[in-house]
Amino acid sequence: MKPYVLGIDIGGTNTVFGIVDARGIVIASNSIKTGKHAKFEDYLDELYTEAMRLIKANDAVDKIYGIGIGAPNANYYTGMIEETANLAWEMPIPLSRLVSEKFGIPCAVTNDANAAAIGEMTYGAARGMKDFIMITLGTGVGSGIVINGQVVYGHDGFAGELGHLIVKRNNGRMCGCGRTGCLETYCSATGVARTAREFLEVRTEPSLLRNLPIEDITSKDVYDAAMSGDKLAKEIFEYTGKILGEAMADMTVFSSPEAFIIFGGLAKAGDLILKPIREAMDKNMLSVFKGKPKVLLSELKEADAAVLGASALGWEAKPMVQAQ
Amino acid sequence: MKPYVLGIDIGGTNTVFGIVDARGIVIASNSIKTGKHAKFEDYLDELYTEAMRLIKANDAVDKIYGIGIGAPNANYYTGMIEETANLAWEMPIPLSRLVSEKFGIPCAVTNDANAAAIGEMTYGAARGMKDFIMITLGTGVGSGIVINGQVVYGHDGFAGELGHLIVKRNNGRMCGCGRTGCLETYCSATGVARTAREFLEVRTEPSLLRNLPIEDITSKDVYDAAMSGDKLAKEIFEYTGKILGEAMADMTVFSSPEAFIIFGGLAKAGDLILKPIREAMDKNMLSVFKGKPKVLLSELKEADAAVLGASALGWEAKPMVQAQ
Repeated sequence: MKPYVLGIDIGGTNTVFGIVDARGIVIASNSIKTGKHAKFEDYLDELYTEAMRLIKANDAVDKIYGIGIGAPNANYYTGMIEETANLAWEMPIPLSRLVSEKFGIPCAVTNDANAAAIGEMTYGAARGMKDFIMITLGTGVGSGIVINGQVVYGHDGFAGELGHLIVKRNNGRMCGCGRTGCLETYCSATGVARTAREFLEVRTEPSLLRNLPIEDITSKDVYDAAMSGDKLAKEIFEYTGKILGEAMADMTVFSSPEAFIIFGGLAKAGDLILKPIREAMDKNMLSVFKGKPKVLLSELKEADAAVLGASALGWEAKPMVQAQ
Repeated sequence: MKPYVLGIDIGGTNTVFGIVDARGIVIASNSIKTGKHAKFEDYLDELYTEAMRLIKANDAVDKIYGIGIGAPNANYYTGMIEETANLAWEMPIPLSRLVSEKFGIPCAVTNDANAAAIGEMTYGAARGMKDFIMITLGTGVGSGIVINGQVVYGHDGFAGELGHLIVKRNNGRMCGCGRTGCLETYCSATGVARTAREFLEVRTEPSLLRNLPIEDITSKDVYDAAMSGDKLAKEIFEYTGKILGEAMADMTVFSSPEAFIIFGGLAKAGDLILKPIREAMDKNMLSVFKGKPKVLLSELKEADAAVLGASALGWEAKPMVQAQ
């Protein structure tokens, strides 16, 4: 058996790739800019060149068992990216087939949140768990759901879009998906910034956030203000955590997970967001589940998680995927 | 291999049991009153006596491979009923162990909605499906979720309580669970009757339903009025179906099922409720799932479904369950 897998995380800005061994040690990693090439073929050429350079430098030629890729909207079943707002290339892209042909190595793909969930299950806070839900709080809200030790892909491969649960049925915020009231319009980093702007416009009390140009406020600014003791900034996190905790109580009646793992930029807010999440979950939980699901922070470095998760998928890659 | 299983459906009123063969043919069935005995032990004595009478009459002694039971709140993992509002016996009841010891046959248990889902997957509208959600519209709203061909039990065995999704976060109806705004307060048979009372009180137009004592109106009355062309009664079903369809669009982002199977008393309303369900699903569906999940009526007779589903579970029953 070949001792390594190649994990690739295709993000909107960077593509990170790493050689990973069976224990989850990243032997070596590197990255390229995702958006540098207008055509996917040119991007793939550069990715191949740089990845092979890394592989050769680490004496890993012919030692790569499989390639695992996490990418926005990538479909585990079909190996395709059909469409995504986060990548500029012409769609659809038969990602798994093209990468597999280029490298001559079997390849499996999934979306970025599922890759992170696999990483967390294999190497992180969900080690040993068979039922958990990964919530990624970044520009949007993503999710990876694991039930009976398996990622939930659903009938079409697109299951686990919990960022698009409707948390406000009427008069909710506009979402990029074309609907209104989605969880991610409130609980993503972008959602936190929107909440900040709403609070600053509607309310009158002083806040450190008023020193910033209102249109430029980011979730990081809100975090910094809250850590400096700013009351309004703290309330913004309470508001965010309350909505997320209510939604997580709803998710619990679906799959009764052992834990929720919180991942991504906003997870850095720690107790600022965990405390209101836990309070809202507890207050809104159906009694049979009360006090049961844990809420944990990811144990993986954000930079590593997707590559590790994608690499874990590499062990599942089968030559038959190539034949699609 | 022994050729039969015994399926038992313990309902609040009746306990139905049947001898079922491997193709899902109910060889013979009978029932007893669930509530006749104050003590579970006495109930079990009668169940044993009557079931053995049926088994002997059908030349099935020593031919029963396993016993499967569907019962309110029964837990697949532990074999217990911890607590339920629907049964009057002293709780908890180690159901699987007691039945298994009494009959000398391995026994597996699950809740009634999961049993119906297993029945539908094995013998009904979900044959051949690996991902579907069963919604049971009765006195309450129950659900059985199947993902990757397996019933979702979750970490504690209690997953799949979709009747307790919150569909109205503020000012929702009181639910028996102690919270407000649960799906089942709107979309159960009881919920339809509550909607009828609300509509009749708030609105002024004529309706056949005004001929009935308002406190006694049932979902069946609303159905009859709607079938007679009563406009208000039709609107009650539209209101019910809209809320359910919105919730089903939310369920879809979780597990992306191939189909929803609608089961139970309200399913008899057919297009009166299916049409608004489908419209609301379509209107509220995240674009990637649009037009994908089917909405089907159960293909099992209500009386058979739970026994058939429970019996299918009987094939999974293992002697080790006895040892718990």
